[in-house]
Amino acid sequence: MARYAIGIDFGTESGRAVLVDVADGRELATAVYAYANGVIDEHLPAPDDDVRLEPDWALQDPQDYVRTIQQTVPQLLASAAADPADVIGVGIDFTACTMLPAAADGTPLCQLSQYRRRPHAWVKLWKHHAAQPEADRINAVARELGEPWLPRYGGKISSEWFYSKSLQILNEDPGLYHAADRLIEAADWVVWRLTGVETRNSCTAGYKAIWSKTEGFPSKSYFAALDSRLAEVVDQKMSREVTPIGRCAGTLTAEAAIWTGLRPGTPVAIANVDAHVSVPACTVTAPGRMVAVMGTSICHMVLGSAPAVVEGMCGVVEGGIIPGLFGFEAGQSGVGDIFAWFVDEAVSPRYHESAAAAGVDVHTILEREAARLRPGESGLLALDWWNGNRSVLVDVDLTGLLLGATLATTAPEIYRALIEATAFGSRIIIEAFESAGVAVDEIVACGGLPERNPLLMQIYADVAGKNFRVAASGQAPALGSAMFGAVAAGSAGGGYDTIVEAAAQMAHLKDVWYRPDPAARPVYDELFAEYRALHDYFGRGANDVMKRLKAIRGEALGQVAAEVT
Amino acid sequence: MARYAIGIDFGTESGRAVLVDVADGRELATAVYAYANGVIDEHLPAPDDDVRLEPDWALQDPQDYVRTIQQTVPQLLASAAADPADVIGVGIDFTACTMLPAAADGTPLCQLSQYRRRPHAWVKLWKHHAAQPEADRINAVARELGEPWLPRYGGKISSEWFYSKSLQILNEDPGLYHAADRLIEAADWVVWRLTGVETRNSCTAGYKAIWSKTEGFPSKSYFAALDSRLAEVVDQKMSREVTPIGRCAGTLTAEAAIWTGLRPGTPVAIANVDAHVSVPACTVTAPGRMVAVMGTSICHMVLGSAPAVVEGMCGVVEGGIIPGLFGFEAGQSGVGDIFAWFVDEAVSPRYHESAAAAGVDVHTILEREAARLRPGESGLLALDWWNGNRSVLVDVDLTGLLLGATLATTAPEIYRALIEATAFGSRIIIEAFESAGVAVDEIVACGGLPERNPLLMQIYADVAGKNFRVAASGQAPALGSAMFGAVAAGSAGGGYDTIVEAAAQMAHLKDVWYRPDPAARPVYDELFAEYRALHDYFGRGANDVMKRLKAIRGEALGQVAAEVT
Repeated sequence: MARYAIGIDFGTESGRAVLVDVADGRELATAVYAYANGVIDEHLPAPDDDVRLEPDWALQDPQDYVRTIQQTVPQLLASAAADPADVIGVGIDFTACTMLPAAADGTPLCQLSQYRRRPHAWVKLWKHHAAQPEADRINAVARELGEPWLPRYGGKISSEWFYSKSLQILNEDPGLYHAADRLIEAADWVVWRLTGVETRNSCTAGYKAIWSKTEGFPSKSYFAALDSRLAEVVDQKMSREVTPIGRCAGTLTAEAAIWTGLRPGTPVAIANVDAHVSVPACTVTAPGRMVAVMGTSICHMVLGSAPAVVEGMCGVVEGGIIPGLFGFEAGQSGVGDIFAWFVDEAVSPRYHESAAAAGVDVHTILEREAARLRPGESGLLALDWWNGNRSVLVDVDLTGLLLGATLATTAPEIYRALIEATAFGSRIIIEAFESAGVAVDEIVACGGLPERNPLLMQIYADVAGKNFRVAASGQAPALGSAMFGAVAAGSAGGGYDTIVEAAAQMAHLKDVWYRPDPAARPVYDELFAEYRALHDYFGRGANDVMKRLKAIRGEALGQVAAEVT
Repeated sequence: MARYAIGIDFGTESGRAVLVDVADGRELATAVYAYANGVIDEHLPAPDDDVRLEPDWALQDPQDYVRTIQQTVPQLLASAAADPADVIGVGIDFTACTMLPAAADGTPLCQLSQYRRRPHAWVKLWKHHAAQPEADRINAVARELGEPWLPRYGGKISSEWFYSKSLQILNEDPGLYHAADRLIEAADWVVWRLTGVETRNSCTAGYKAIWSKTEGFPSKSYFAALDSRLAEVVDQKMSREVTPIGRCAGTLTAEAAIWTGLRPGTPVAIANVDAHVSVPACTVTAPGRMVAVMGTSICHMVLGSAPAVVEGMCGVVEGGIIPGLFGFEAGQSGVGDIFAWFVDEAVSPRYHESAAAAGVDVHTILEREAARLRPGESGLLALDWWNGNRSVLVDVDLTGLLLGATLATTAPEIYRALIEATAFGSRIIIEAFESAGVAVDEIVACGGLPERNPLLMQIYADVAGKNFRVAASGQAPALGSAMFGAVAAGSAGGGYDTIVEAAAQMAHLKDVWYRPDPAARPVYDELFAEYRALHDYFGRGANDVMKRLKAIRGEALGQVAAEVT
């Protein structure tokens, strides 16, 4: 008898579901739903589109998540001609922190007519960046009070995270804050919709809401110091019950069974985060191998058997990725999006014309030309800070640098220098882990870049001096969610009892190795030493020119704004 | 009766002649001849085009200079319907150091069949850059022997100059060196062709051949230390008789009269250099006002009443620009060519499309957009070293830098940052003059950039905090040469007795003032402080990363070459 699991990956622009064979992880069908309301960053959806949003806002419509479920799962079953009875479990993953205010029964406040025109009633997407003042306050108060949890997050809480967003609601729309019975991750909200059970998963709680297995949430006195109205936020609007990932959250309700075409009672896994759920989908369930989710940015995850303080890491959560292990997360805030910027803004028409003539995209043309260059041949060196630095320096005000240009410098040379810069940025992170005692012997990559850009993968291997492998699945998060769906079912239900067992059967790597080229190593070691010198000079206070330029720019823009108004 | 003078400006790609009214400098006709053999940098002209040149070579064909005379002057006379009897004098200017080996009668060795296939027999153009090893030796020996003239040249003799090129001939083709009766600037060679008289002008002798009015040429012992075969170079192949600019070299020969359609006996001025001859054409004949010849690069010239040592200057020559004054020269090696590189390599198709749609060039579109930005608004800062630094740092191995890029950075922002960087580079030079006691109260610009780019001119004024004026003539060198032609005639011949008098009547400025905007000054002072900090950090040894990257690049290219052979 066939046994299937379904994983649903809720992304930024769309949701993607996959139907997987539980025996070997074979992907039998995929379905994608592009959110009707996408990323809401200019005005609320019609009929309330006269309500405009401030800069840096990014919202979503929770109904798009329900539509994803309703559209994709029936499509999966149909296209694979699968018997719903053979689907033993469902798992989901989400972007994070993506959170919303809800009523006690789970109804999002934005679906209540009295709140729907209030922007704070909607889902705040991970990349909602308007809560920086709140994050600044969270960090300042934490430093002042010497909060013990701060080092677990590299010394800095992000404006993207749970309390920054919650505090922004309280500051800017206190009435709505009080009207919210629940503040909840969208990941947990979807599981709630599917099962009727409100749960809080250990992954988002740990990485985004400052929870730890041993110490729980920050103290009431800390929250009170932030804002007296926030003192009881955990007990009033969240829950102290945090469920480890890998558990079963509940089973499909009759309503969710109708949405999906699955059988009521189908087990549903505790929710997870897209990056983190990719780790077992990359075959990684033990210390020693890093997973790099490589796309517009890179998320680096490593498992360890003991806690450690790693410079600039996003967070370390016990049981946050794999039960029983410490999950370390770090990241580079700009990778693929730097290449995209370059191709969009700074590449001459003749490369676009070559690409059109060859029927490929401009990246392919640039990569081809760049691949003909040897390490060091471009004469260029870049600092990959076009989107700030969310790595060891944790400083959004750092900016990109390109050095070494001559009148003979070409676009493919710059393209290669940008790839190399991001590779140096990854090496900084790898070395930060290693020097904190967290082993990184090999890297497994997933995401869009490893599929498309073999030159980039080889450069990363050469620069890091590590083997890079690539996940077999092009949709690692959805596969990982399906694996957790199989674990929710358990062996008794035709699945697996642990994610480690599930990974051993269901996760695979491509038969491709990117091994460091011994001839390239010495040159890249030299170039990396130069990168590190510039990294420290501009990033650690010797010359804060980047920050001063941003401040000057801010003043110039303020002047413009003042003139316009 | 009309009185005309003719100026001929021998450029890199073409020669340009102008017919000027001696009374007021009005330009009545212009004619241009594009050299048939242009810049010879890959192989010799047919039928010897199987003789290939090494990298960095740049030659010219002296016959192109003769053709320029033959083509342009008759055209001038025809188009202005001018009576040759009304042409009272001719002056010429040239790129420099552009030099050639010749027989005793002035025949270029490349025109003798036995030498024509030998590359060293041809004219070495100013931008022939293959004599760097020779320049290195010239500098090393000069430092070792403590040669007193070295400080007059900013401490460094360029590979472009006269003895670097001469020594390269000796090193690489000693037979040809010995066959050459004369080594001579092309400027002086053209005057020789016109008049039958071999002269050496004080401008090229001073700026390119280490001559001074008081000390003459370097000593025989210095030349002998360079190479024993070079000990007698001045007496054997040059001349100790150096004629001040402003003098009459001789009069047109019968043959030259046939070439030009002018009357035999028409006075011809001592030769001059394109940049230097522009100074009086910009109305500048006294200390206090700098002339900036602004094009692909910038040449800065100031007059002083006393010698001074200015950091990084190209040279100071008594009587080198205006008789009786010290002429100081400095320069920026990359300006317009950086913008050209940017437009050619690093600007997205949509700006090219806008330009095509608007029927303007891409520079115009970028300038328009850049003009909307306030100082500091781009958030960017650049070091204008795409072509090295020939300013105070005198270091060809420095390279370009762009700092402050984000994912929102646009091409017009980069364009403006590049303009600003070159303006900061100019301010460094202005301040070097001022701190050496050479006054720079105002700047008069000529060349292509001031004609085309008002935004650039305003930024230069704002950054320098000085008024910028623009020469009325769009062809200042040719006008300046015509003015010297009028001086060769003297007042007795219907001209002027001094270049100062000629300038007072014949040279004019546009009625355009670029005055520093007081609102922009404080921001540019801040940005200039940042520029200077990076300039000193990367340019004065704190971090020699640019040189190390060049060295690494050289090794990588060497490896490639080794594999190919």
